[in-house]
Amino acid sequence: MGIRIGILGYGNLGRGVECAVAANEDMELAAVFTRREPSRLKIASAGVPVVNVKDAEAWKDKIDVMVLCGGSATDLPVQTPQYAKLFHVIDSFDTHARIPEHYAAVDKAAKESGHIGIISVGWDPGLFSLARVYSNAILPEGKDYTFWGKGVSQGHSDAIRRIKGVKNAKQYTVPVESALEAVRSGSNPELSTRQKHTRECFVVLEEGADAAQVEQEIKTMPNYFADYDTTVHFITEEELLKNHGGLAHGGFVIRSGKTGHEKEHSHIIEFNLKLDSNPEFTTSVLIAYARAAYRLAKEGQTGCRTVLDIPPAYLSPRSGEDLRKHLL
Amino acid sequence: MGIRIGILGYGNLGRGVECAVAANEDMELAAVFTRREPSRLKIASAGVPVVNVKDAEAWKDKIDVMVLCGGSATDLPVQTPQYAKLFHVIDSFDTHARIPEHYAAVDKAAKESGHIGIISVGWDPGLFSLARVYSNAILPEGKDYTFWGKGVSQGHSDAIRRIKGVKNAKQYTVPVESALEAVRSGSNPELSTRQKHTRECFVVLEEGADAAQVEQEIKTMPNYFADYDTTVHFITEEELLKNHGGLAHGGFVIRSGKTGHEKEHSHIIEFNLKLDSNPEFTTSVLIAYARAAYRLAKEGQTGCRTVLDIPPAYLSPRSGEDLRKHLL
Repeated sequence: MGIRIGILGYGNLGRGVECAVAANEDMELAAVFTRREPSRLKIASAGVPVVNVKDAEAWKDKIDVMVLCGGSATDLPVQTPQYAKLFHVIDSFDTHARIPEHYAAVDKAAKESGHIGIISVGWDPGLFSLARVYSNAILPEGKDYTFWGKGVSQGHSDAIRRIKGVKNAKQYTVPVESALEAVRSGSNPELSTRQKHTRECFVVLEEGADAAQVEQEIKTMPNYFADYDTTVHFITEEELLKNHGGLAHGGFVIRSGKTGHEKEHSHIIEFNLKLDSNPEFTTSVLIAYARAAYRLAKEGQTGCRTVLDIPPAYLSPRSGEDLRKHLL
Repeated sequence: MGIRIGILGYGNLGRGVECAVAANEDMELAAVFTRREPSRLKIASAGVPVVNVKDAEAWKDKIDVMVLCGGSATDLPVQTPQYAKLFHVIDSFDTHARIPEHYAAVDKAAKESGHIGIISVGWDPGLFSLARVYSNAILPEGKDYTFWGKGVSQGHSDAIRRIKGVKNAKQYTVPVESALEAVRSGSNPELSTRQKHTRECFVVLEEGADAAQVEQEIKTMPNYFADYDTTVHFITEEELLKNHGGLAHGGFVIRSGKTGHEKEHSHIIEFNLKLDSNPEFTTSVLIAYARAAYRLAKEGQTGCRTVLDIPPAYLSPRSGEDLRKHLL
């Protein structure tokens, strides 16, 4: 019997976890938990029970790790501490500024009930955090650069959709290639917001809306667009659905540092991702850390953890001996 | 008082450790140990004792972590287990095929004497191993690619110098840009040895040596050059010393993998390094892991560890709280 995974929430992330579990031989999907009426939810895996979240407690001993697939804005701040009382849990909480309070809440619930909770797992926070921590520890004298994209920003797309006259929209964050090259050269440039990323918007107008007015509102929107070079394309709803439905994303974490008694030597540490499917990749990371959660729990550890606390070997299904022989 | 570091062996690595300790505020250099006559060894740090290795035992309680800076061929297989009896130790043992036996020897010595030993720390093995283990755990369906360079290969330079008629030589390993691009495209190419790297040799001949004969011997040398496209340049000793004395290196670890029920989505995870000074960077990694060794020892842990066993947060001088707030 493999590690028994529960999925709570069957959106893009839930479906990604389902896929990732199938790709890992040491795991099995035990059940999918939903707030909807279970009989109406069709999942991809044959024979796996769909359960109403209200009945989750009955599954206490039948789930090794519960993967929480809700959103960071309102779901996870409640769900992760709540379900940490019943299960070992893992989430992809990605509101950077609120991580300390989320950590505290999950830590308390998990410790009191004797569970493990791993939070903020994915690629940023997640793998990008690892890249930042490793490279800062190795090159204490240096400068960090993070670039995102090319990929859709949900927050920016939503901001455009709230403008009067806009029917639908997708916004791509695009890293500026020349800025990336400047960073890679080791010149440690000071880069303004505008110099690092451009924003590309694909907008479907409501009938009779004023295109020039909408474009002006987008380009001058504070925080979201005003500090960026923004391009706006007006397209039809058909074009939007056909050409801009993808979930590709990616990004770059680069640390540029110096060593030597005179700081005369430059070094570049770069980590980058190019992802066809943001949710499927995020959940692939989640599932590797679900394995770690299972192992930590077996050791009797309790409380909250992040990717920074977990030895890399705990993510792999292979033994320490095997890893040392073949991957070290 | 900071973490008290000892250096054993004052070559390129030893000097790099000295530099890295100076760059980390929570550390101090306690002593340099040498097999040479101590009074004849001039080190960069004023006021730091230089001690004959024979007297190391007297320093048992004055060193928190001993950094072993010997070579992997003959020094470290003996030194690391030997000094693990007296100190918490760390080394950069890089003979991949012999890691399992080195691990066993260090584990035994460290456990018996109640010490921690971290082996094979640097960038390959080391950071590249981390990239391989993380990315394999995340994308179980995929293919690994490692490229080295551009940088000097000591082993290949030595092989050229053993040829009759050769006075001196430097050999650069150069990754093939088109192969790197093919890998990054997600096409999962099958790449032969010849397709991944080229070899570029700068050779100084002895007086009267036959250039054509030397070039032929290099290009047909089994294992080292026969399977590669190799270029040979004959230069003067002055040119070699002036233009090819650098210690730059680097490389790329890329995992190209698939997710999705039909494996329809491609993902690229890339980690790359561009280093002005291979020994200074390697020792910067060593020193970050020396901090981890110190912390593991404080917890009372004993035995051998590799980079795969150590939580990333242990490398950083910052607290868990600080890391969660600013780098996660």
